[in-house]
Amino acid sequence: MALQWGIIAPGGIVEEVSPFVFYDGGVNAIRAVASRNLDKAKAFAEKFSTHGPVKAYGSYEELIADPDVQAVYLATPTIPRKILVEKCAAAGKHVLAEKPLCPTANEVEEMIQKIKGKGLQFLDATHFVHHPRTHAITQVLRDQSLLGHVTDVTSSFIANLPETPTQIRFMVDQEPLGALGDLGWYNLKLTFLAFDNLQPESVVALTTPASPTNPAIMSMTVVLKFPDLHVPNSKPIPRTARFVCGFNGSSLVQSVVVQGTKAAVEWSDFVHPWSYVARRKNTRVLDTKTYPLEYKICKRAGHVNAQVVTVENADAAGVDYLFRRFKRAVDEGGSAPDITSMLQADVLVHRTIDACIESRELGGVPVDFKGKSGARM
Amino acid sequence: MALQWGIIAPGGIVEEVSPFVFYDGGVNAIRAVASRNLDKAKAFAEKFSTHGPVKAYGSYEELIADPDVQAVYLATPTIPRKILVEKCAAAGKHVLAEKPLCPTANEVEEMIQKIKGKGLQFLDATHFVHHPRTHAITQVLRDQSLLGHVTDVTSSFIANLPETPTQIRFMVDQEPLGALGDLGWYNLKLTFLAFDNLQPESVVALTTPASPTNPAIMSMTVVLKFPDLHVPNSKPIPRTARFVCGFNGSSLVQSVVVQGTKAAVEWSDFVHPWSYVARRKNTRVLDTKTYPLEYKICKRAGHVNAQVVTVENADAAGVDYLFRRFKRAVDEGGSAPDITSMLQADVLVHRTIDACIESRELGGVPVDFKGKSGARM
Repeated sequence: MALQWGIIAPGGIVEEVSPFVFYDGGVNAIRAVASRNLDKAKAFAEKFSTHGPVKAYGSYEELIADPDVQAVYLATPTIPRKILVEKCAAAGKHVLAEKPLCPTANEVEEMIQKIKGKGLQFLDATHFVHHPRTHAITQVLRDQSLLGHVTDVTSSFIANLPETPTQIRFMVDQEPLGALGDLGWYNLKLTFLAFDNLQPESVVALTTPASPTNPAIMSMTVVLKFPDLHVPNSKPIPRTARFVCGFNGSSLVQSVVVQGTKAAVEWSDFVHPWSYVARRKNTRVLDTKTYPLEYKICKRAGHVNAQVVTVENADAAGVDYLFRRFKRAVDEGGSAPDITSMLQADVLVHRTIDACIESRELGGVPVDFKGKSGARM
Repeated sequence: MALQWGIIAPGGIVEEVSPFVFYDGGVNAIRAVASRNLDKAKAFAEKFSTHGPVKAYGSYEELIADPDVQAVYLATPTIPRKILVEKCAAAGKHVLAEKPLCPTANEVEEMIQKIKGKGLQFLDATHFVHHPRTHAITQVLRDQSLLGHVTDVTSSFIANLPETPTQIRFMVDQEPLGALGDLGWYNLKLTFLAFDNLQPESVVALTTPASPTNPAIMSMTVVLKFPDLHVPNSKPIPRTARFVCGFNGSSLVQSVVVQGTKAAVEWSDFVHPWSYVARRKNTRVLDTKTYPLEYKICKRAGHVNAQVVTVENADAAGVDYLFRRFKRAVDEGGSAPDITSMLQADVLVHRTIDACIESRELGGVPVDFKGKSGARM
């Protein structure tokens, strides 16, 4: 039977996600929707009632109390997230939560412990790590005969999201982590995927604020230093990562290079497959060539191999895989190793975000992983 | 008549460059070569004497004193460069000098003033800025109807140059600037080309040293903050750049994304055309597809246009264009605007390198463009 979802805070993301996730109601079905604006909830409920009635609520608490709702997709801004997850936990609801999870890592850990402690499923709504493309590239990253050991990750995630009066991404009282939490989140999830949840030693974050009057993080460049790699018959091998995330691009950039000790891998669409981007509504993409998963394996002086790996539904939306994975977790119960690893990554991401915010408070100096100044890089 | 060259310090770079530059002796001809090891000079002279006799000297000063030598190609390590340029100037020789020019910007300015003050030609041996591909991409970068104003440059220049007992790049007493001077030089030349020699406000440099016992710069991540752009009817627009340079890649990476206010441009071979890399001897490149100049113009959500621009001899070596440009400068005399601009960029590059070294000395904190701590980023 389909998992019965309640959606809290329908907005841009929910509008984008829902047609991919709830298209037939067979695996995941919308049962209820809650907005503080009841009219908005009603309009959304009507729009997505093709496969069965959708209840509309004018308060989040009413939806959480609905006994027909099994799982909550929590799409609010960051600030109210922790309280709402804890209310869901108390009501016995599984939760899929948008990212960033909370302003600080301590809040994230406390929140995850509360809901996991009730035997409920909890997952962040990062879609790309669930996409079969990402599973395919992860196999490449883990292939020591091909890549050796990962030593460096460089990634960019830049979008065109200008500041407007209604753009919540620039409101520090609702989204205090700005571009770091919204976009840098993906860079960090990718980095920890490549480094298999290795904990960094030190962190530097260099910030461009939205404007002289708005300190919201518009873009940020982050450099991470990891512990050296020790392999037999070799000097210690430094391990590093760096990324840029920003709302201030004129176009989408989502490229990555992972260096290993034997080869490097690069691809240019680590978050959204270009082929998915190309068929989304209202994009201005004219180049609709399909790129199932095109990556380059490089050795020594140049590109040895440009590989195109075809995976099933390579241009599908990652959110569909995310919700299906969540449904399976609910069906199976317990703690699956892949989800446990993702939640460990979430905590690492948030500890790194804490350190970035501390580095930023100090004017862009290196800090250790606990956020203490005095680190050198 | 061909320009008569004397080559000082034949080594790896000279061996690589010479077949492209002196292939017929018609425009640029080798007249003499000097090495502190006379046997090495003799072997080189014999190898390149196809188009006329090449004199071999066992001291640099003898070559500089040779009245038949019109121009000197100075391929020594960085440390002796300034003294040798000044000796060339005193002897009335034009000089093409390998990069980085000197350890500090003050030395560079003094050196350039000395030789230009004699009415002689002087140029750094950065080849890619002379390549017709780079001229074509520069037209794109300057096209305000297409790109708007440049706001951000992200570039990577990573090579596979491991530390060995004879690898001079890791010897701080001869190449004190390590990967920053050797590879970051290209990132910086590109950045100042895109920003039309705009002076940065502040700089951060994060360093990975060669090993616990060798402080040589193996790789460095640099972030630059430029003055905001002011355009009518808009908030101030931040301008930034960042790059990574490193000897510690398993393969060559030389990619760049330039964001403008209207669109972004990305290409993946800003230093050496992939097609040139592919046909160089001893590379392990299996993919020999020709990429004359493939760049992507991106707007909003994705790649609007992948453009392949065909320029004459697109896969030619940049050094050939460099030496031809130098020959023309000698023939024409005076100060050509393009060369003046390149030398201004050289000083900016070296001032930025000074600031990077200062940031590094301080453990990786932001410094202002004069290298003073207390800058915030």
